[in-house]
Amino acid sequence: MSDAVFLTEVCSRDGFQSIREWIPTEVKVEIVNALIDCGYKQVEVTSFVHPRAIPQLKDADDVLAQVKRRDGVTFRALVPNVRGLERAINAGVHKAKLMLSASDSHSISNANCTTEEALTQFEPLIERAKESDIEIAGSISVAFGCPYEGDVPVERLIMICERYASFGIEEVSLADTTGMANPAQIKRTVRELTQRFPQLVFTLHLHNTRGMAFANAVAGYEEGIRHFDSSTGGLGGCPYAPGASGNIASEDLIHGFEAMGIPTNVSLDRVLETARLIQQHLPSHIDSFVLKAGKSSDLSERPAEQVKVES
Amino acid sequence: MSDAVFLTEVCSRDGFQSIREWIPTEVKVEIVNALIDCGYKQVEVTSFVHPRAIPQLKDADDVLAQVKRRDGVTFRALVPNVRGLERAINAGVHKAKLMLSASDSHSISNANCTTEEALTQFEPLIERAKESDIEIAGSISVAFGCPYEGDVPVERLIMICERYASFGIEEVSLADTTGMANPAQIKRTVRELTQRFPQLVFTLHLHNTRGMAFANAVAGYEEGIRHFDSSTGGLGGCPYAPGASGNIASEDLIHGFEAMGIPTNVSLDRVLETARLIQQHLPSHIDSFVLKAGKSSDLSERPAEQVKVES
Repeated sequence: MSDAVFLTEVCSRDGFQSIREWIPTEVKVEIVNALIDCGYKQVEVTSFVHPRAIPQLKDADDVLAQVKRRDGVTFRALVPNVRGLERAINAGVHKAKLMLSASDSHSISNANCTTEEALTQFEPLIERAKESDIEIAGSISVAFGCPYEGDVPVERLIMICERYASFGIEEVSLADTTGMANPAQIKRTVRELTQRFPQLVFTLHLHNTRGMAFANAVAGYEEGIRHFDSSTGGLGGCPYAPGASGNIASEDLIHGFEAMGIPTNVSLDRVLETARLIQQHLPSHIDSFVLKAGKSSDLSERPAEQVKVES
Repeated sequence: MSDAVFLTEVCSRDGFQSIREWIPTEVKVEIVNALIDCGYKQVEVTSFVHPRAIPQLKDADDVLAQVKRRDGVTFRALVPNVRGLERAINAGVHKAKLMLSASDSHSISNANCTTEEALTQFEPLIERAKESDIEIAGSISVAFGCPYEGDVPVERLIMICERYASFGIEEVSLADTTGMANPAQIKRTVRELTQRFPQLVFTLHLHNTRGMAFANAVAGYEEGIRHFDSSTGGLGGCPYAPGASGNIASEDLIHGFEAMGIPTNVSLDRVLETARLIQQHLPSHIDSFVLKAGKSSDLSERPAEQVKVES
């Protein structure tokens, strides 16, 4: 194993969005700037959903106006509709990510429309994007299981990927939104989709709700996935089980991949520093193994020389 | 994937040992009895180390006298020396597990002797065991990394397995004591050892210190490992990083394997009930994903029918 992986940092969107308390714009900017310094080539900076739906990110335009820009770093943002797309274009976003749910129940709960209606509503957005320089990426929430319906047939994912491909979209993120996937399922699903859609680049967006996120990442890697989302500090919980784990922490994913000899081209030490910075601002929201335990390579002081004591 | 796995529950040894507060004998007995009702065919009930070394388990004999016995359920206990073995035999233990460390530093820290000295000290114990009905199993702590020395050369594991095999031992548990293993390393190491020692049955004893325990279990399974240790409620921390995760929770391992279609022959629902029982007695020591988040198959109530609201 030596192929590098390409990580997209989503803490500032998926993480911030999940936190009810208001995070001041300058804190958001400070954290995004620190993330860029870690070496990520893509950061999902924010979301242009309606401020009434997600007031936590109502300062999306301000955040994008204030964060530093660096050549080679793509700013991605979540965009639900044409109005959001206009805001994203004005804010200088490089890539707009569309979001829809694999199941109708989750789609209704999240976006108040069925999956089919969501796809239809994307059409004017795609048209508008073609008139601009912004790239469009697709995503599929609850791709590996829906908290309302349970199993998601792979035919649903195929149908959605076909529609995305018909829009001219070239990359699709498969999200295990509530951490229901297992490694065997990841392998089956990824194999099916990569064989059917060789023209698409698939990303895995994994949650550690049931402790399987890293195993799922490895399963995806073994099936050829090289793109992963992750969230520094593990920010971003599971809305269906308060207190349960959510997004896989970037530091845990990087630490694991690098230990396996898989380059990430992101500085683990800087990510850990950034996780500590996030922890200062949002102490109760951090969920990260490596931040707590340290790296495998952090050694303890050796015990003093052997002393014979009464046994 | 369909081969079943064989799980040994270690909560009552590895878990209880790691908790400083005194757990009353009747609570230990209640928990062990509940574990037996889950369907485990092997339970590591306790440890016969000197009560001064681990006072938490000084009632090992009493626990074994009081727990219920069931045909087909093997009681395993940790035994450090001949005196401990005599206690284990008297207490009706079926299988004594030897413990030694792969690295000299960890061995000195844990047992005040080098690995070689530990192996030599096992010899009279093996002789004594031959005169009784007790089985002997081997184990290797810090097999995938030492918190003092870092990497553990596979040659150390080979040397120890050779000595264990020369004692007539047929099973060896490989312990990732401080959670330093990664899946690529697990695969390499397991492949090397199973090829060299086809006569030995290897068990993986995994800790989730850096979030990789389930990925390591899957890697081991893919290399042919079918025996795993785990601890209900995830009891048993990491002594080198207070607050960090330790033993993989039985419910997380069972949930993951069963989701992959790998039978465990242990009742996940009963394990979850037992984890709740342990939580009542030891609330601050529980560390389990599935206990917090529920099973993947636990569905939420579907959202009410779609309503059109002002967008």
